[in-house]
Amino acid sequence: MKIVALAGGVGASKLLDGLRYAMDPRDLSIVVNTGDDIEMFGLYISPDIDIVTYTLAGEVNPAMGWGIKDDTFHCLEYLLRYTGGERWFNLGDRDLATHIFRTSLLRSGRKLSESADLIRRTLNVESRIIPMTDSHTPTTIITDEGDLHFQEYLVRRRAQPKVLGIRFENIESAYPAPGVAESILDADAVIICPSNPLISTGPILAVPGIRDLLKETRARVIGISPVVGGASLKGPTDKMMADLGMEVSAAQVAKSFSDFLDTYIIDYQDEFDATEIESLGIKVVVADTVMSNAEKKLALAQTTLKALS
Amino acid sequence: MKIVALAGGVGASKLLDGLRYAMDPRDLSIVVNTGDDIEMFGLYISPDIDIVTYTLAGEVNPAMGWGIKDDTFHCLEYLLRYTGGERWFNLGDRDLATHIFRTSLLRSGRKLSESADLIRRTLNVESRIIPMTDSHTPTTIITDEGDLHFQEYLVRRRAQPKVLGIRFENIESAYPAPGVAESILDADAVIICPSNPLISTGPILAVPGIRDLLKETRARVIGISPVVGGASLKGPTDKMMADLGMEVSAAQVAKSFSDFLDTYIIDYQDEFDATEIESLGIKVVVADTVMSNAEKKLALAQTTLKALS
Repeated sequence: MKIVALAGGVGASKLLDGLRYAMDPRDLSIVVNTGDDIEMFGLYISPDIDIVTYTLAGEVNPAMGWGIKDDTFHCLEYLLRYTGGERWFNLGDRDLATHIFRTSLLRSGRKLSESADLIRRTLNVESRIIPMTDSHTPTTIITDEGDLHFQEYLVRRRAQPKVLGIRFENIESAYPAPGVAESILDADAVIICPSNPLISTGPILAVPGIRDLLKETRARVIGISPVVGGASLKGPTDKMMADLGMEVSAAQVAKSFSDFLDTYIIDYQDEFDATEIESLGIKVVVADTVMSNAEKKLALAQTTLKALS
Repeated sequence: MKIVALAGGVGASKLLDGLRYAMDPRDLSIVVNTGDDIEMFGLYISPDIDIVTYTLAGEVNPAMGWGIKDDTFHCLEYLLRYTGGERWFNLGDRDLATHIFRTSLLRSGRKLSESADLIRRTLNVESRIIPMTDSHTPTTIITDEGDLHFQEYLVRRRAQPKVLGIRFENIESAYPAPGVAESILDADAVIICPSNPLISTGPILAVPGIRDLLKETRARVIGISPVVGGASLKGPTDKMMADLGMEVSAAQVAKSFSDFLDTYIIDYQDEFDATEIESLGIKVVVADTVMSNAEKKLALAQTTLKALS
């Protein structure tokens, strides 16, 4: 069974970390959000691609869910001497190798998708990792304190400003990266990982063409709710949804995907949402979606695959 | 007394390390060789500028004479996973901060001279550090194994190929960096540091205009021989001179500077060269020029200043 997963960062990677044991990883292609991408110190940083890649390589820092395990931060400390800024974004010494290598590839004319492929192959990741687009489409969070790059909003300002809106810069002129359309059309199933629907899955679906591909594909499309019991397990999904006047519920997220979703996995805590989701023509599977350890990651991955069979 | 020093890397930095205690470092400007500059992993590396800067900042690795003390090499190890090459050039994690910062300045349109100034100011170096030129004029060593970038010849191939010639790429279209001419014309003295005359002092003198400035300036010009007892204390000076059919002697080096040199400091071991050098109209000072510890660095710096007074 050929599977495409649409993924953000940490939340998605937990499921992917389960999937790599639950299926042949060579049959998995992952289309990754690049709205979080940011240039710092002249280096092109692609946080979600790195999180997914490091996770599947078994190199991710398990405590954080991002960065490389046992990394040091000597270069960053010295960089901040030069630039004089506060340390709001952590870049480990080993992690920096990825950013330096990617940046040098991009400067020499290679595409982001080529760099992502070279990097995952070097790290012996068997699944294909594809950025949603090769264009730079940074996510801007419109807040009561002004427009902020998503990383500034999330990391520097710790998601404190009130969200008034979200803008994906240059998205209207972006194309899906090579491999995105083919993967989705060839797939037997598409998994919408439990990522922030606004700023992880949202940018992917906003790339012109991708949403239509999900409607057109013969693949079954299954999603896993990132909202459990009215809150996001990690990250600012719940706060952002609330700021924007949205109901913070699994049903609300399912609704936003109702034009292409066949099946939605919600947590036991959200069983009462099932009727509302089913009324949209979406099949509901209820499961334990809180992936707090390796066994639970694998179990949810198996549940997902079973729902597709 | 305002002093300009022309400097290569490790040899020059020993004298400069003495000079910063022997004089007011604010009265010292250092014009540094950039022929060794090289781009690696998309980063612009300026080895001699960094050696001089780190030395004057008190941060240099004292065992090597280059790099930052107590540095780690985690990023480089991971970079080599991506690029697959051998590790022939060491770039420490802290050191990389300098290269990343410099590269980002250059990419944003700043000049190498501006980056050198920002970096030395950040590291609280009071002496001015000026690259010989803002142009990229890499030194090519023509060898019996083909043309090699100087760093490849010296570091990767450990100066083993036979040197047939030396070429400073693009040097004919280079200009002295801002501050070079003014410093030399305003100086009371110019010190030619004990650097490799072929590939450290040589590129500086090859920048159109600089040699003429040394002839025109009212400043006394004093040099310290990098050749002691028929050999270079460090580096491939002696082997390169021999390969090129030159006599490996203090007198030979003095001769190559005879059009602008007023005084030359040679080692006690080379006293017999004094007559030949004096016959060129150059005053000779004989001293202990082997700077094997901090006291000897300071002593040679004081000898140099005394010869100028």
